Amino acid sequence: MEVVNIKEKFTQFSDHWNPRIAGDLNGQLVKLAKIKGDFIWHSHEQEDELFLVVKGTLHMDFRDKSVAVQEGEFIIVPRGVEHRPRTVNEEEVQIMLFEPAATVNTGAIQNERTRNELKEI
Amino acid sequence: MEVVNIKEKFTQFSDHWNPRIAGDLNGQLVKLAKIKGDFIWHSHEQEDELFLVVKGTLHMDFRDKSVAVQEGEFIIVPRGVEHRPRTVNEEEVQIMLFEPAATVNTGAIQNERTRNELKEI
Repeated sequence: MEVVNIKEKFTQFSDHWNPRIAGDLNGQLVKLAKIKGDFIWHSHEQEDELFLVVKGTLHMDFRDKSVAVQEGEFIIVPRGVEHRPRTVNEEEVQIMLFEPAATVNTGAIQNERTRNELKEI
Repeated sequence: MEVVNIKEKFTQFSDHWNPRIAGDLNGQLVKLAKIKGDFIWHSHEQEDELFLVVKGTLHMDFRDKSVAVQEGEFIIVPRGVEHRPRTVNEEEVQIMLFEPAATVNTGAIQNERTRNELKEI
């Protein structure tokens, strides 16, 4: 029963779009990721996904709109909904994710941005 | 797909030990609660429970130790582990919980502190 300091965990890695596992409960994972620039359009067939912004501004594109998620805010993207996370002006943004352990970052797509085996932090 | 501002949600209620539902995903709920003073000793037979501190210091007692969880930190209490959340010096603490929808605040105990039907916020 470790106490996890979120900001401290973010000092332990520097790469982008490569989530680390910071917690594990009820078949769900808490993940921490640094992101910068555009990710790819994708959706998750079976999993809803929560994005909580720890630092900076996350822009979440949907096919019909785009929303800004600021520090201290979260958004839940329901399963099946296409989305593209991104940041603007080269900002590095820190996010915390809550999602089922089976969730793959690129959803149904497998490409060079897919991260299948995440490290614990 | 609402963007949820956590601090803003906390301005919408003032009672203690009465969690509000701020999000719903994968059979899990995101709950927000203001707490002050001692809660009761309890455990959850089937559910792991994540406590993230938004403001103040949460003290989590276990039968063999007590840990302080500061702002920006979280702790996961595994199913079956007896725990007692509390605050000290009359501090009001704001916490975010992540747990299965079936989780009852007092675990296997039903008493006057049990909250069975939580409101959305």
